[in-house]
Amino acid sequence: MNSYGTLFRITTFGESHGPAIGVVIDGCPADLEMDENFIQSELDRRRPGQSKITTQRKESDIFKIHSGVFEGKSTGTPIAIVIENQDQRSKDYGHLADAFRPSHADFTYEAKYGHRDYRGGGRSSARETAARVAAGAIAKLLLRKEKIEISGYVSQVGNIKTPPYTQLDLSKTENNIVRCPDEAIADKMIALIDKTRKEQDTIGGMVTCVIKNTPVGLGEPVFDKLHAELGKAMLSINAVKGFEYGSGFDGIQLKGSEHNDEFYNEGGKIKTKTNHSGGIQGGIANGEDIYFNVAFKPVATIMKDQQSVDKEGNVTTVSGKGRHDPCVVPRAVPIVEAMAALVIADFLLRNKVSRM
Amino acid sequence: MNSYGTLFRITTFGESHGPAIGVVIDGCPADLEMDENFIQSELDRRRPGQSKITTQRKESDIFKIHSGVFEGKSTGTPIAIVIENQDQRSKDYGHLADAFRPSHADFTYEAKYGHRDYRGGGRSSARETAARVAAGAIAKLLLRKEKIEISGYVSQVGNIKTPPYTQLDLSKTENNIVRCPDEAIADKMIALIDKTRKEQDTIGGMVTCVIKNTPVGLGEPVFDKLHAELGKAMLSINAVKGFEYGSGFDGIQLKGSEHNDEFYNEGGKIKTKTNHSGGIQGGIANGEDIYFNVAFKPVATIMKDQQSVDKEGNVTTVSGKGRHDPCVVPRAVPIVEAMAALVIADFLLRNKVSRM
Amino acid sequence: MNSYGTLFRITTFGESHGPAIGVVIDGCPADLEMDENFIQSELDRRRPGQSKITTQRKESDIFKIHSGVFEGKSTGTPIAIVIENQDQRSKDYGHLADAFRPSHADFTYEAKYGHRDYRGGGRSSARETAARVAAGAIAKLLLRKEKIEISGYVSQVGNIKTPPYTQLDLSKTENNIVRCPDEAIADKMIALIDKTRKEQDTIGGMVTCVIKNTPVGLGEPVFDKLHAELGKAMLSINAVKGFEYGSGFDGIQLKGSEHNDEFYNEGGKIKTKTNHSGGIQGGIANGEDIYFNVAFKPVATIMKDQQSVDKEGNVTTVSGKGRHDPCVVPRAVPIVEAMAALVIADFLLRNKVSRM
Amino acid sequence: MNSYGTLFRITTFGESHGPAIGVVIDGCPADLEMDENFIQSELDRRRPGQSKITTQRKESDIFKIHSGVFEGKSTGTPIAIVIENQDQRSKDYGHLADAFRPSHADFTYEAKYGHRDYRGGGRSSARETAARVAAGAIAKLLLRKEKIEISGYVSQVGNIKTPPYTQLDLSKTENNIVRCPDEAIADKMIALIDKTRKEQDTIGGMVTCVIKNTPVGLGEPVFDKLHAELGKAMLSINAVKGFEYGSGFDGIQLKGSEHNDEFYNEGGKIKTKTNHSGGIQGGIANGEDIYFNVAFKPVATIMKDQQSVDKEGNVTTVSGKGRHDPCVVPRAVPIVEAMAALVIADFLLRNKVSRM
Repeated sequence: MNSYGTLFRITTFGESHGPAIGVVIDGCPADLEMDENFIQSELDRRRPGQSKITTQRKESDIFKIHSGVFEGKSTGTPIAIVIENQDQRSKDYGHLADAFRPSHADFTYEAKYGHRDYRGGGRSSARETAARVAAGAIAKLLLRKEKIEISGYVSQVGNIKTPPYTQLDLSKTENNIVRCPDEAIADKMIALIDKTRKEQDTIGGMVTCVIKNTPVGLGEPVFDKLHAELGKAMLSINAVKGFEYGSGFDGIQLKGSEHNDEFYNEGGKIKTKTNHSGGIQGGIANGEDIYFNVAFKPVATIMKDQQSVDKEGNVTTVSGKGRHDPCVVPRAVPIVEAMAALVIADFLLRNKVSRM
Repeated sequence: MNSYGTLFRITTFGESHGPAIGVVIDGCPADLEMDENFIQSELDRRRPGQSKITTQRKESDIFKIHSGVFEGKSTGTPIAIVIENQDQRSKDYGHLADAFRPSHADFTYEAKYGHRDYRGGGRSSARETAARVAAGAIAKLLLRKEKIEISGYVSQVGNIKTPPYTQLDLSKTENNIVRCPDEAIADKMIALIDKTRKEQDTIGGMVTCVIKNTPVGLGEPVFDKLHAELGKAMLSINAVKGFEYGSGFDGIQLKGSEHNDEFYNEGGKIKTKTNHSGGIQGGIANGEDIYFNVAFKPVATIMKDQQSVDKEGNVTTVSGKGRHDPCVVPRAVPIVEAMAALVIADFLLRNKVSRM
Repeated sequence: MNSYGTLFRITTFGESHGPAIGVVIDGCPADLEMDENFIQSELDRRRPGQSKITTQRKESDIFKIHSGVFEGKSTGTPIAIVIENQDQRSKDYGHLADAFRPSHADFTYEAKYGHRDYRGGGRSSARETAARVAAGAIAKLLLRKEKIEISGYVSQVGNIKTPPYTQLDLSKTENNIVRCPDEAIADKMIALIDKTRKEQDTIGGMVTCVIKNTPVGLGEPVFDKLHAELGKAMLSINAVKGFEYGSGFDGIQLKGSEHNDEFYNEGGKIKTKTNHSGGIQGGIANGEDIYFNVAFKPVATIMKDQQSVDKEGNVTTVSGKGRHDPCVVPRAVPIVEAMAALVIADFLLRNKVSRM
Repeated sequence: MNSYGTLFRITTFGESHGPAIGVVIDGCPADLEMDENFIQSELDRRRPGQSKITTQRKESDIFKIHSGVFEGKSTGTPIAIVIENQDQRSKDYGHLADAFRPSHADFTYEAKYGHRDYRGGGRSSARETAARVAAGAIAKLLLRKEKIEISGYVSQVGNIKTPPYTQLDLSKTENNIVRCPDEAIADKMIALIDKTRKEQDTIGGMVTCVIKNTPVGLGEPVFDKLHAELGKAMLSINAVKGFEYGSGFDGIQLKGSEHNDEFYNEGGKIKTKTNHSGGIQGGIANGEDIYFNVAFKPVATIMKDQQSVDKEGNVTTVSGKGRHDPCVVPRAVPIVEAMAALVIADFLLRNKVSRM
């Protein structure tokens, strides 16, 4: 199904080259001020064509709220947001009616549904994430009232990496086009992406996200652990191959005596001295910073010719056409943040019913 | 909530030191033969006390089916399985009523619920996973009819790793107590775990899982991508810190031209030459092997003294008591497999309604 | 939440005087031909202003499909349908910002949400049912492929009633403006509604619905019994006060020996001699006709002055303004059918997974 | 699926002649005192064999809590309750392996699942409602803290009826074996049931339920209207054929000017002068009494011989055996109350998230 969340619940719809994409947000509490400028600014962060290292495709991504808002505030009823598709150029995609692009969803959709909208990937296009960003912006407005802050940034492109987030100034993320808060490393990342683009190729990357001021108690035991939902939310983003939080895969090599986070009392507040737990213990937030990494593969659409097969199994050549991102992570930052905001907003509501 | 799955849906219940744990499986199709010996054998693989490198705690984990099975076959109604708790030793845990064990769920449960069963971690104990393994065994019986095979194994303990699964003989996994299919590496892992245990410490590890013969088309677009559900399922297991599939985090450093999996026609069947996609494209299985890694942190319970605080925020010392695993991965293998089986069984049913 | 259905699932949105209303249909199988003329004709049956006994308000109810359809057929992805609101006349409703109309949802929405769109009832307006009718039309297209027929008609207005459906020719329902298949009774109903309208009052009514050719086995035991879902679906329609199926409330006075439906073998097909069961036994369809009654109260908006209070509890007078239906049932027929179609379509999909 | 409720959610399991039946309650807030005597007393109200006008079958219905309760209070984790089946007498049912009992679920289960537990109706047996009553008792404990009272009673048996509830003293319901608060009418009902039993027949009846002190605002707009959920909950009970609330089917004959409930201010509290709305407007509670009627058909099992067919379609005779109720309503009262309590408890929790 195309819905996500339990109480703060979104349903997205739309294909990249259909009339419109959009989202219905159900469960947003009444009385939340809708800052439409903020929603637009979040969409602009995800929008194609924003710099030389993103796709040059132009989409203005103007949204319209159809329902659920009255006199500038939410009413508690479903908020429907529609974004019309403008720069459709269906002709770019006619050649894809039959050929299966390598590492795209063409073949699997064909196998599953029989009938599919092949233009630009249709439903499997990353265009769908614009709807998530719009919904995530509303979730962020909710979190803002609770002082919760979500900060994503690019922490790796190819083999170029930042140090841990605790050594970075996250307020600088938006200062450059790759969205890396360390200026010197950002320059190297930009150069690598630009070089890759000129080689008609693409490169992978990583987005790190930090959530501050989460109330103690968010999250549910057992299946809906806070990090399990964050993981699902991130893995549901196009091109994501991995998720880790806190010590993550590096934690494998640690001993329990090194990994455990000792509790202490800081002026009446229970804190931990270290934070290998990534702010989550037993699936529930403990009040420390939540942080996690999201691995993105290189974009599958490259400008080089590739061998493939068509629907009938005949050998065919797929040539790169259209305008695509050489590296997905700069534009993925707002998407990661949006999905994180949706997860936290949902748990904020769910947590209201854990006690009498 | 304590349920997982959409159509093949489980609900687990129970605390480590309450009367019983168990699971209700709702949505299992009628007419499936219940091989009770197989269910017991899966529980035995997870059971404590099975070797020198696992906890010496004795639990026999005898299950009883209360409903949903008649004349040896499922009836389509809910299958309730109950496992009584036997080796309770509540006295081991009296000292934990107030103290918060580092990197356990004591503090977060207390903060969330106010009132909690502190004995042995209560609901947050890994004992809950016995219920998952019982349900997963039934899911495996379903998959067996479709010839789908799920094989988990230990691929890393501390800094000792196996080569990729394609270079291993997975039929040898159960030949040793650490559940690593490479005998020489297994010996090193066992030695490391044994050494760590003697140091009164614990160590992290990794479980890799391979799923073969998945039908093309399993999985759902957008939020419920096959790998997103696998990720959530794995991250919901106690002590898991990360999940990656296919090329995973290593894929970050690859170029698109290296990473893309070219399609070819093998006697009428569409296959890919490489499998960086990990058998999933656009969230939907393409028929190649699905493979993924699950990172486990070192067990939080160590035998060394640790500083902590109690409910009132007073400094206290937590001393290791009880009988715990020095490394969780050998017993985690059947749990990873069980969760994978539950995910695949659910998508098998969900896939029945994708077309007219 | 504003969603309905498990596998064939709709989410509606929109207020009567906001920019638009609409629905997202998730779970419609791929490859279903979208007969847009049929969808429009169903909307036209519900539309205001269609005859002298309905409201004279003009709404053209032109719908637009935003997604999920390609080359005239469903793709298996969400189908979003939007209907823009045209005849808004917000000025008619300014006086309702504070006054609570008797037996409307003004007071309860205010109490629940604090902030509400009071124009024309906002979300509580029956305008929302246009979205249901659009979605129901698509469900009907699905049922048409299975030869399932749904026929609603007006069986009572005030104290004027039809005989049981088995004595009526349901093909004549659309022959008159009250949608009653018995012409003589229809005339009396129309006269009663017209008289009531002239008295500036409103009157209640009943819709009966018959579903033919339902496959044996539709429905789920226990909570999601076929008639329980039909009941919920009908009771969720504005102004509905009661639901009964088969023998219904009259069955109370029968004896078991009179009420039981004996089975017999009709040329290899198992049938029942009578059908007090209304085609459903143990919550599951037995292949006989399903039939049920839906009771509608008189429309709450009357043209007479009524005493009430405002937000602050001050006494105020509510005067009837705007253009409203003197009796809701003629326009309710397509709504009842739409909800029935949605329930049956959902169970058709759910039934695909009951057996191995 | 065998679950009901959104936030206060139950999953029942079990067949009438399997080892046990039971329920898992997920979402019960922490810190609720578990009054086990009260739970048992509710089960005793539903239990067979309690009087001459109920089945003489003996079931003690002793329950056991397996989880979710610690030191006498809920912990916020799932509460599993198991009731072992004792008086099984499978031999009574051997003759039903093939014959389809008229107006039972034998035929439809066989058609749906192929493989079914035919003993005593298996899953379709009203024995499943014991699990609902146990769960409903816990919901009642929750409601008790909010001062919400639920009172069910028998309002009709055959053609013998009580006056409206406002003319009855509901505290007298438990004073007689038919659970009718009017003693004189109760006597007539008992006589009618006894006469029917001697005729080896059964008779239908009605249960009315009144809910007092519901907070204003409970219920959700659109699909999950408070009365729509109450309707579904009631219709999911075995043998129920109809549901109406407030003015119900009688409201059809009223005019709007008669039916509308005028608001007035009673010492700062907004009330309605009449209550045709049945305490619910626009699907949301307005604070007035909620009241509704539930119609039960005559029990399908009668002691007379009936014609039927078997699996192969051969004509066969079904003779009444076993010990069954001549009229279901006296024992249905606690079931109706339990389902009502579950619905209200769920909406109490859901209502916590409607506003910021």
